[in-house]
Amino acid sequence: MAMKRVAASAIRAFTSSGNSSSSGLTRHLHASPGSKKIVGVFYDAKEYAAKNPNFLGCTENALGIRQWLESQGHQYIVTSDKDGPNCELEKHIPDLHVLISTPFHPAYVTAERIKKAKNLQLLLTAGIGSDHVDLKAAADAGLTVAEVTGSNVVSVAEDELMRILILVRNFVPGHHQVITGDWNVAGIAYRAYDLEGKTVGTVGAGRIGRLLLQRLKPFNCNLLYHDRVKMDPELENQIGAKFVEDLDAMLPKCDIIVINMPLTEKTKGMFDKDRIAKLKKGVLIVNNARGAIMDTQAVVDGCSSGHIAGYSGDVWNPQPAPKDHPWRYMPNQAMTPHISGTTIDAQIRYADGVKDMLDRYFKGEDFPLQNYIVKDGELAPQYR
Amino acid sequence: MAMKRVAASAIRAFTSSGNSSSSGLTRHLHASPGSKKIVGVFYDAKEYAAKNPNFLGCTENALGIRQWLESQGHQYIVTSDKDGPNCELEKHIPDLHVLISTPFHPAYVTAERIKKAKNLQLLLTAGIGSDHVDLKAAADAGLTVAEVTGSNVVSVAEDELMRILILVRNFVPGHHQVITGDWNVAGIAYRAYDLEGKTVGTVGAGRIGRLLLQRLKPFNCNLLYHDRVKMDPELENQIGAKFVEDLDAMLPKCDIIVINMPLTEKTKGMFDKDRIAKLKKGVLIVNNARGAIMDTQAVVDGCSSGHIAGYSGDVWNPQPAPKDHPWRYMPNQAMTPHISGTTIDAQIRYADGVKDMLDRYFKGEDFPLQNYIVKDGELAPQYR
Repeated sequence: MAMKRVAASAIRAFTSSGNSSSSGLTRHLHASPGSKKIVGVFYDAKEYAAKNPNFLGCTENALGIRQWLESQGHQYIVTSDKDGPNCELEKHIPDLHVLISTPFHPAYVTAERIKKAKNLQLLLTAGIGSDHVDLKAAADAGLTVAEVTGSNVVSVAEDELMRILILVRNFVPGHHQVITGDWNVAGIAYRAYDLEGKTVGTVGAGRIGRLLLQRLKPFNCNLLYHDRVKMDPELENQIGAKFVEDLDAMLPKCDIIVINMPLTEKTKGMFDKDRIAKLKKGVLIVNNARGAIMDTQAVVDGCSSGHIAGYSGDVWNPQPAPKDHPWRYMPNQAMTPHISGTTIDAQIRYADGVKDMLDRYFKGEDFPLQNYIVKDGELAPQYR
Repeated sequence: MAMKRVAASAIRAFTSSGNSSSSGLTRHLHASPGSKKIVGVFYDAKEYAAKNPNFLGCTENALGIRQWLESQGHQYIVTSDKDGPNCELEKHIPDLHVLISTPFHPAYVTAERIKKAKNLQLLLTAGIGSDHVDLKAAADAGLTVAEVTGSNVVSVAEDELMRILILVRNFVPGHHQVITGDWNVAGIAYRAYDLEGKTVGTVGAGRIGRLLLQRLKPFNCNLLYHDRVKMDPELENQIGAKFVEDLDAMLPKCDIIVINMPLTEKTKGMFDKDRIAKLKKGVLIVNNARGAIMDTQAVVDGCSSGHIAGYSGDVWNPQPAPKDHPWRYMPNQAMTPHISGTTIDAQIRYADGVKDMLDRYFKGEDFPLQNYIVKDGELAPQYR
């Protein structure tokens, strides 16, 4: 793992000391001894922090690595205050070496922040999805960006299946009747369906998409998927899903569409007014990927007209979603805050994964290959 | 299919005509020609009735069989007014031949009503679950009771899996934050889990329980089931669930318990204070079977103390649930009105099934064997 930013700093150091050797320009440089300043940006748990000993992904419990870091002489700053020029994070930008963040309460790492962060070497995502980082700027600056790949793919896939069923069954209006003292079966049933027999298409069939398809198999649906690459025939046959190369050929066939792509320059706003207009009337959409893949207003308009019969997801643009975000108030939504990937089980896995990568970083070892999002100035394929 | 009640009427008829032949005492008697008075009790759909042409299970659309019945000279009365001495149903009790009802808006057929219903021959449930009928009184009176077995088993099993995930993920408080303008990931995440790796036990593994287990298989849970009978080893192996003969040995092992039994004299109130106290602290319970299987107050107390971390279901005692039913107001509930078995897909199937049984009834033919709940004075095994 060559870390160009570190290399650049090394060049400056070598230049000033008059040492002309280039042997410093290696992956081992980041293992330079001494105290590192590590900043973690997580959500605050407040009174909830003490309610579960495995609730690791909050500021109070800070991935459970404080003692381990401090015992090695590193400094570990943790905050939830991440936005605006006067936030706590901003104070530490100039001298931090490592920034850990999560998709649930993302520290937006802009080109401007990268420029200011002269000591920054490593950006770690506790979870999956590093679109809160300006990846091109990070690559240009020689930073390494890595995630805990796989840490919450099961969590997200399970949650997607829950949301499919919640929309298909019209659960939210049903529950609403209970808490308001009503009982009107007809008001729910006139648009409640079985999942069996319906056409479900996933846009993206990476790790999460495949886990979802596997879990959908016993439901006897018609399963479709679109991706950059077709699965190998054996896996495709085992999963029972059909590849559709042309996204816009697949989408109008779907009763239910699930978004399973990273947010990239190509996928940003790809579900706009025109594309939504071509979907089946009454389509249900589940999006636990990223909010910005959708055109916000186009989703509101689709739900309001009934063209989209239901929209559920846990991702918003931006996050936290402001009080006046229109998805809070549109009809036929079954939204939540960003929670699908931060189950207690997932937190244990991504806390372990972050600790493992920090340990390797201190020792100058490579990370598991699949964890890299930016390495040696190159973006991982799914972000290109 | 001998219908004792019909036979009894026939005896009176024979007696008065002086005909002493007993050949009339056969299953074919119910096919006696002439107009039948058929009463259907369904929920009102009001403005929703016209919103979906397949919304058959309401008073307005009346299973879509009005024209078919009337063209054959039968009378078809349909109402939602089913309770109390002055209700519409009560007026027709003395002379109806067939009563059709659903579990979603059940016509309670008491021993008293059976006594008054001198012409009654056949009680049909559009759906599954005939506990709204006093089955012993029906058997004693020689009535036939039949359901559309299988018509909504898939619908209910899918809904159960949705409710498991809703509880495991703590969905309801998450959605509540969205509509109240909040964003507090910690308040949801501190008790949100993956389903993977958890122990799920179904109490009852009939058609619905098995469909649920099949759908749970890819989730990599530890699956247990209790039933009167063990599945054959091949099916058990295919489903991947382990039989536990002793219910009270299974229950304390379960993180999630799903109720899949009919309501009978034996199962009524079986989840009482003592049994709930023996469950794992933090257990999640899904009950789409019947509300009266639970002790109402014991569930409230369990949810209030947190011993039950989540309770979700669509069945109540009685139905419709009154405005002051305590399950509406207890914490950690994800309840709905009784909807799981009345999806549009299920309505099409149970409307078809009722029409088929009526057609056979008019023609003097037997019903599909699995549909009988009371036949020849005997209750089906699951109700004994």
